[in-house]
Amino acid sequence: MLATIVEVEGGGAVLILDQTRLPDETAFVRLESLADAAHAIRAMQVRGAPLIGATAAYGVALGLAEGLPLDTILATLAATRPTAVNLHWALARMAGVLQESALAGRCEIAWQAARAIAREDAAANAAIGQNGLPLLQGIAARKSTINVMTHCNAGWLATVAHGTALAPIYAAQDAGLAVHVWVSETRPRNQGLLTAWELAHAGVPHTLIVDNAAGLLLMQGQVDCVIVGADRIAANGDTANKVGTYLKALAARAHGVPFYVAAPVSTIDFACPDGAQIPIEERAAAELGASLASRATAVANPAFDVTPAGLIAGIITERGIVAPDQLVRVKP
Amino acid sequence: MLATIVEVEGGGAVLILDQTRLPDETAFVRLESLADAAHAIRAMQVRGAPLIGATAAYGVALGLAEGLPLDTILATLAATRPTAVNLHWALARMAGVLQESALAGRCEIAWQAARAIAREDAAANAAIGQNGLPLLQGIAARKSTINVMTHCNAGWLATVAHGTALAPIYAAQDAGLAVHVWVSETRPRNQGLLTAWELAHAGVPHTLIVDNAAGLLLMQGQVDCVIVGADRIAANGDTANKVGTYLKALAARAHGVPFYVAAPVSTIDFACPDGAQIPIEERAAAELGASLASRATAVANPAFDVTPAGLIAGIITERGIVAPDQLVRVKP
Repeated sequence: MLATIVEVEGGGAVLILDQTRLPDETAFVRLESLADAAHAIRAMQVRGAPLIGATAAYGVALGLAEGLPLDTILATLAATRPTAVNLHWALARMAGVLQESALAGRCEIAWQAARAIAREDAAANAAIGQNGLPLLQGIAARKSTINVMTHCNAGWLATVAHGTALAPIYAAQDAGLAVHVWVSETRPRNQGLLTAWELAHAGVPHTLIVDNAAGLLLMQGQVDCVIVGADRIAANGDTANKVGTYLKALAARAHGVPFYVAAPVSTIDFACPDGAQIPIEERAAAELGASLASRATAVANPAFDVTPAGLIAGIITERGIVAPDQLVRVKP
Repeated sequence: MLATIVEVEGGGAVLILDQTRLPDETAFVRLESLADAAHAIRAMQVRGAPLIGATAAYGVALGLAEGLPLDTILATLAATRPTAVNLHWALARMAGVLQESALAGRCEIAWQAARAIAREDAAANAAIGQNGLPLLQGIAARKSTINVMTHCNAGWLATVAHGTALAPIYAAQDAGLAVHVWVSETRPRNQGLLTAWELAHAGVPHTLIVDNAAGLLLMQGQVDCVIVGADRIAANGDTANKVGTYLKALAARAHGVPFYVAAPVSTIDFACPDGAQIPIEERAAAELGASLASRATAVANPAFDVTPAGLIAGIITERGIVAPDQLVRVKP
């Protein structure tokens, strides 16, 4: 069975599914060092906030096995990508565990802590699926096919298992409900193709669209709800997610379609008061492709945008669905 | 100097700039028959509502020169693309002129009428530029650089000359104002690259973005106004334009940024009461590119969406700027 990240037998290294080669090719990359882990995150061989967190946790274990100082390891991994808070959450948790433990046993403790983070992510996402399921059951009670729109990939590829936004969809499919998913391409990196690939393998009917088509479909009444993942949720519920999410949230609101965010509690940054404080990663112009118009053309390539809490009907977490202004209820 | 459509010397054929090969290559295609003209429109070698209208007009002249019946010619051209109303407007005008004229002189009359349509389009767009200029001068009065966002290509490439949405920008540049344009890629066919190419050649500073980035830029206050073209404007002001336009209009409204449509009066369909009546062209899945996720993935590819009149601050025509609910004022 495919997985996004697994330890090799005997330990000492992890295998990741190289998502830059999907959906054309299913290839694994072996991470044996801190540098390997940092590169995998930066180059988006692994992506998705929860999976970035788990990969960073394993990266700490790999760095310690190389004999590197913990501070260097943490700083290196923290600098890989700025927006997803799960990265910092995982590093803080690793630091907390390791700083309390004796130097001699640190290596093994790091592996155990990374495994725990991965295991807990899978469990949290399974719970997100079960917690989101009643929303889809409610739609199924009044119509034959549930049309869900999503953005980017917040499926099992973005996590250790199950996914976040796609978890309720998989749960609905398991429960025998008829679900169809509108999958938006998600330029510039086309993570929608990852979602389409996942859904095809799971046998969930779906239709690929360009990002631009979301407004028309919502206007035409072809969408019953929108579910997306998150890279960082501020304490007030403002949510950073893949750029373009905000446009879908605005269009959903214009047509009275509920817009949900699905994310583990580790994606909530209780230290961040609102969305304006969330750093937005600017990525390379080359991501847009080779046909750039001319040398006179500048390119801006922000990777995320912020959806204001007021546009979000609910945040589906492993502890239940919470209103964006009630996040304190799930605060650990 | 480059032009989108010109008659060859001596007459009997027209040359069009093949826009499917831009911006990589500047190549002209010779249209010598009705079939050539219909193909050029269908395959989007020419695109943009006003240019489609002018090409169809020349297509009528080419068909008559082949000795084809007028009804066949009109039906063939009318079936090429469904959304842009300028196509039908130009065909109706050609039919009106030709049905009043003696059979013997029809061929020459058709050429003259097509030339008149082309000439009038260029003049209308020049006037759109002048009529839109005060909007940009108003922004320039309070800040040093005017940031305009557009969508798709509504520049001179979409018309016989000057463009529609870009006409006020070119007028501002000519007037010595500092304008910067946010150019959105416009998936799936990337007409944003045509806009970038145009602007680069004209020396207008611009930045290419993915369509998904529009909401973030508007939220960040980086856009002073949005100007787009139109494929068909209903009598109530609802406006069909390239898919994705509606998302920009929603985001502009959310941040109090004025959203303008620039189009000649020939783009207004006074016979169409509202946007729900505008046919939306569904184009081939192949336009999304080769990397479609798997055979299990369906694709939907609507080429246009409809922006409700209520989101439009004004429609910039050759007869002045009119509120979308006041279109009757410019009715011919």
